[in-house]
Amino acid sequence: MHKPLVLILMGSDSDLPIMEKAADVLNEMGVPYEMDISSAHRLPERTAEYAKNARGRGIEVIIAGAGMAAHLAGVIASHTTLPVIGVPLKSGALNGIDALYSTVQMPPGIPVATVAIDGAKNAAYLACSILSIKYPEIAERLESFREKTRKSLLEKSKELKKL
Amino acid sequence: MHKPLVLILMGSDSDLPIMEKAADVLNEMGVPYEMDISSAHRLPERTAEYAKNARGRGIEVIIAGAGMAAHLAGVIASHTTLPVIGVPLKSGALNGIDALYSTVQMPPGIPVATVAIDGAKNAAYLACSILSIKYPEIAERLESFREKTRKSLLEKSKELKKL
Amino acid sequence: MHKPLVLILMGSDSDLPIMEKAADVLNEMGVPYEMDISSAHRLPERTAEYAKNARGRGIEVIIAGAGMAAHLAGVIASHTTLPVIGVPLKSGALNGIDALYSTVQMPPGIPVATVAIDGAKNAAYLACSILSIKYPEIAERLESFREKTRKSLLEKSKELKKL
Amino acid sequence: MHKPLVLILMGSDSDLPIMEKAADVLNEMGVPYEMDISSAHRLPERTAEYAKNARGRGIEVIIAGAGMAAHLAGVIASHTTLPVIGVPLKSGALNGIDALYSTVQMPPGIPVATVAIDGAKNAAYLACSILSIKYPEIAERLESFREKTRKSLLEKSKELKKL
Amino acid sequence: MHKPLVLILMGSDSDLPIMEKAADVLNEMGVPYEMDISSAHRLPERTAEYAKNARGRGIEVIIAGAGMAAHLAGVIASHTTLPVIGVPLKSGALNGIDALYSTVQMPPGIPVATVAIDGAKNAAYLACSILSIKYPEIAERLESFREKTRKSLLEKSKELKKL
Amino acid sequence: MHKPLVLILMGSDSDLPIMEKAADVLNEMGVPYEMDISSAHRLPERTAEYAKNARGRGIEVIIAGAGMAAHLAGVIASHTTLPVIGVPLKSGALNGIDALYSTVQMPPGIPVATVAIDGAKNAAYLACSILSIKYPEIAERLESFREKTRKSLLEKSKELKKL
Amino acid sequence: MHKPLVLILMGSDSDLPIMEKAADVLNEMGVPYEMDISSAHRLPERTAEYAKNARGRGIEVIIAGAGMAAHLAGVIASHTTLPVIGVPLKSGALNGIDALYSTVQMPPGIPVATVAIDGAKNAAYLACSILSIKYPEIAERLESFREKTRKSLLEKSKELKKL
Amino acid sequence: MHKPLVLILMGSDSDLPIMEKAADVLNEMGVPYEMDISSAHRLPERTAEYAKNARGRGIEVIIAGAGMAAHLAGVIASHTTLPVIGVPLKSGALNGIDALYSTVQMPPGIPVATVAIDGAKNAAYLACSILSIKYPEIAERLESFREKTRKSLLEKSKELKKL
Repeated sequence: MHKPLVLILMGSDSDLPIMEKAADVLNEMGVPYEMDISSAHRLPERTAEYAKNARGRGIEVIIAGAGMAAHLAGVIASHTTLPVIGVPLKSGALNGIDALYSTVQMPPGIPVATVAIDGAKNAAYLACSILSIKYPEIAERLESFREKTRKSLLEKSKELKKL
Repeated sequence: MHKPLVLILMGSDSDLPIMEKAADVLNEMGVPYEMDISSAHRLPERTAEYAKNARGRGIEVIIAGAGMAAHLAGVIASHTTLPVIGVPLKSGALNGIDALYSTVQMPPGIPVATVAIDGAKNAAYLACSILSIKYPEIAERLESFREKTRKSLLEKSKELKKL
Repeated sequence: MHKPLVLILMGSDSDLPIMEKAADVLNEMGVPYEMDISSAHRLPERTAEYAKNARGRGIEVIIAGAGMAAHLAGVIASHTTLPVIGVPLKSGALNGIDALYSTVQMPPGIPVATVAIDGAKNAAYLACSILSIKYPEIAERLESFREKTRKSLLEKSKELKKL
Repeated sequence: MHKPLVLILMGSDSDLPIMEKAADVLNEMGVPYEMDISSAHRLPERTAEYAKNARGRGIEVIIAGAGMAAHLAGVIASHTTLPVIGVPLKSGALNGIDALYSTVQMPPGIPVATVAIDGAKNAAYLACSILSIKYPEIAERLESFREKTRKSLLEKSKELKKL
Repeated sequence: MHKPLVLILMGSDSDLPIMEKAADVLNEMGVPYEMDISSAHRLPERTAEYAKNARGRGIEVIIAGAGMAAHLAGVIASHTTLPVIGVPLKSGALNGIDALYSTVQMPPGIPVATVAIDGAKNAAYLACSILSIKYPEIAERLESFREKTRKSLLEKSKELKKL
Repeated sequence: MHKPLVLILMGSDSDLPIMEKAADVLNEMGVPYEMDISSAHRLPERTAEYAKNARGRGIEVIIAGAGMAAHLAGVIASHTTLPVIGVPLKSGALNGIDALYSTVQMPPGIPVATVAIDGAKNAAYLACSILSIKYPEIAERLESFREKTRKSLLEKSKELKKL
Repeated sequence: MHKPLVLILMGSDSDLPIMEKAADVLNEMGVPYEMDISSAHRLPERTAEYAKNARGRGIEVIIAGAGMAAHLAGVIASHTTLPVIGVPLKSGALNGIDALYSTVQMPPGIPVATVAIDGAKNAAYLACSILSIKYPEIAERLESFREKTRKSLLEKSKELKKL
Repeated sequence: MHKPLVLILMGSDSDLPIMEKAADVLNEMGVPYEMDISSAHRLPERTAEYAKNARGRGIEVIIAGAGMAAHLAGVIASHTTLPVIGVPLKSGALNGIDALYSTVQMPPGIPVATVAIDGAKNAAYLACSILSIKYPEIAERLESFREKTRKSLLEKSKELKKL
């Protein structure tokens, strides 16, 4: 598994501090990805190309993060039938509610799988869940990750009780 | 003045009852226009073509109406430097707040001139204001329209006082 | 392809008129599914069992629709690593904003792929997109559906121009 | 009165700075309690056990604090008929409105007694009010606390008037 | 058990169609109650008396329903240390969000146990949960009610599967 | 004019930094006032007394500032027919929207004259406008204040143009 | 008392069904008023004249009702130092929240006494409260009105108890 | 092109840090402008004069920025038929939502071309788009700007890939 399965796109380089958390999770889960900047509004044709070529290049899930009138995920979804995960980003005066509504309220036929505002980590975990229906090893890694989470929380529970 | 100066686009035929109010105003103001359906999500390439060719074809203002995750105006604005007026439409559970945020919260460099939710009439009046900087006869018609509005309101004021 | 690949769950029988639109889409796309009622709050253990057994039974995507404090999708996601799609339903005084926030704002590690309020159709299209990474015939059907959508919109465009 | 009457649960150790204010109030009121971390999403089965065993272990009120898609209080309420008090926590981009809606908008039959966003103190005072119907000494301590509050405010009123 | 244990108050007779659902639940659960109209704003002194005398008269839980700037529950809570359950009612232009915020966002020391907008039924179930810590028979009836709910939902599940 | 005409009340000493701006304006306008802390929830009876005695003591306008579930202005208005001005204060997670709704959405018959969130200055100017119908000298001072404001803004305009 | 003391203005004749409730209350309270239509946007100069001449003509309170971007009350307040009461009207997609914010969030120095959305009745009661500081007979009528309200509510309480 | 084509107005000198970004863009684009402070509420007559004289003085687009109950753009639009661009500014407790609604929700006949909250840059780009229908050199500069934007984003994309 070396060819990227996941494509992470963001609308601006200012989105990187949040969006690279998705990359971190994919690294941790051993899922190859590529990451790029490509704005729906400033580079519309390149963005469309990215979406149209994705399946042909072996990409199986696209994660798109954008803020404010966040059209990136929707625009990508209009050019591909691959699963597209949208990450509404908190920026500007409306704290990401604008991005949430612009990402989740898609019309019938062109869905975007939306996660929480600034939820880049969950976008990656969701990508893994999607891939897990095809790659049993990813299903196993997700189970291990859940188990690790449970243990870590039980550790914290023990520490709290000591106090 | 016979060639269309204004292009009215909407994302779905269900938007017609609201968007044709823009056409009515332009008819009243003697401004030639054309009107079509072209979704940002369902016909992305045709929509992009519409935007890219508009200035060359003599269009000077584009009005775009869409509901929910209303990307139409923004997508058009990403493909043209003509003034683009966005009409957020009330539809779905959020009553048009989603469409308002998706239309107005555009990133720097790609503006959309946003009017009220379901404000198709004002989109047309705004188009006339924009055209009025170049066509003095449209400026005059706007002044006459304002005068007519004032008189009509004064009439209503008189009627109220009679009661 | 006869064994159900998609499990559609809803919290109450009053959710059926919206949620059966997901079933209609899956029928149209030739994707086998099963559909049931199982509340996160009123049948918590049965709901947990549904989620825990799903992967073992061959289910590859779960769609969960609920209104108000819509915990169903999140609760299911806490018991499985399969992709879970949440449909926030419009009901009660808050028109589905409560259900949207309760569904989309999941904590890191337990993602829910959220679609629009009352977006049951898109939940099914998203399920197809997810399945399309494994089943090429579903990818093809999605492309045909998109093509059909484009043609239907072009038809409507022609009719509008005749008026 | 030594056996815990109140169980304080929170979804994450990051909730502790707010939730320990509930513990402080219970200490002040002389009400024995226990406090633990147990996430609805990351430890669903342990959380269910906590709820199911609570009444049998002598617990009479459960306080549950969680942020974002705050399912903790609702999930606990689905497993017990004890009174469950929900504290929506302010975290993430939506400042706790998501947690408020996820906690308060419960369906008929499974109520959660919701207090203000970050209202851990009031969760504890409400727990005391509930216990006061059975333990007259807690009713008396609540009256004393109210009296102290009144005096303290009258002190502040006097100081203001001196200025 | 004949003396009323629960007092149901509402701010206006227009609140009766919602608030009598609380009475219906209490009847069903065999919990004696009394119900009256007494506005925080129009009958402030009578309302204060109601609250102050409640514990002395044997009342153990107060349910207060009000709409818009819903001060009723908070005003009652300021005059008693009994548990006060607030039901924000949907009325006026803001659909009950005003009533929700006015009811739930109480300052430290004067809690109101808030349920969903128009959640009169859950107010009654919550009252039963509270009483159940003192009256084992009410705990039992709550368990039976939950069991009945489970069975009824399983019935509906079966009917759905027949379709 | 030495006896206080305006009574400024606030629910907590933490409200003083905002509410003393009302006092500053009244000082500037030469309007005698008194200022005190008296919570609707923590000192309900004293607060009611304040409202009931106000007109008899010569008070002509009451200004009440409170945050969160801001009942203070409404509770005072329920005990007097004097004009009551409500200042919703920004505090807690909801930034004052809760206080705005709790103050402005009063039921018919018990009005509160609401100003902007944290609008203590405007509460004082509004009090002056109200007093100006009876005291011509206050009308004059308001005119002078407006004139001063105009001049100050014209100064700033000149400075801007120099840049 | 025959010369109008209160001026009721509204932005459009479509506002009459709500705004005439203010007139009804003033009739009931024996307070002379005049009522007219005069839009801030469509008749800006006439509206300004109305405001500037009001005090000179003997008007002592102005009530202004408008919907959507409700500028009427603020524009009037900018031209007079009389007390101006703003009634935000419910119209359009945002149900009056736009009108509420446009009316209440005035900058320092130009206050608008805002009442509830569609709160025309309370605007009139507030006008009476304001006038009551100068006209003792209006204070008395307000007291009688409150007494009548109390009796009517006690009647309804009795009827409820009969059921 | 030396006479100002664009007039930038703001309601207060505190709006300058945001509004001067509009001036920066116009400088960059070689579009002559003038900039001034003139409040709708504090200098209503001067503001009206500004609007009424603008077209006669050669102004072709007006940009108006204001916060809270942002009436400036609407008031200007009521006095001119030139295109008016409104910039809702983030200030006060509501973070600019009040200003957005007050600016965008204009009644039919008096449109305001609204941009994002604090979107002063886009106001200037929109002014350029409007002017571009009359001045081909501005259309060219907009194209160059877009090209520059594209290149800059591609640069950032390259840098990201190096990491």
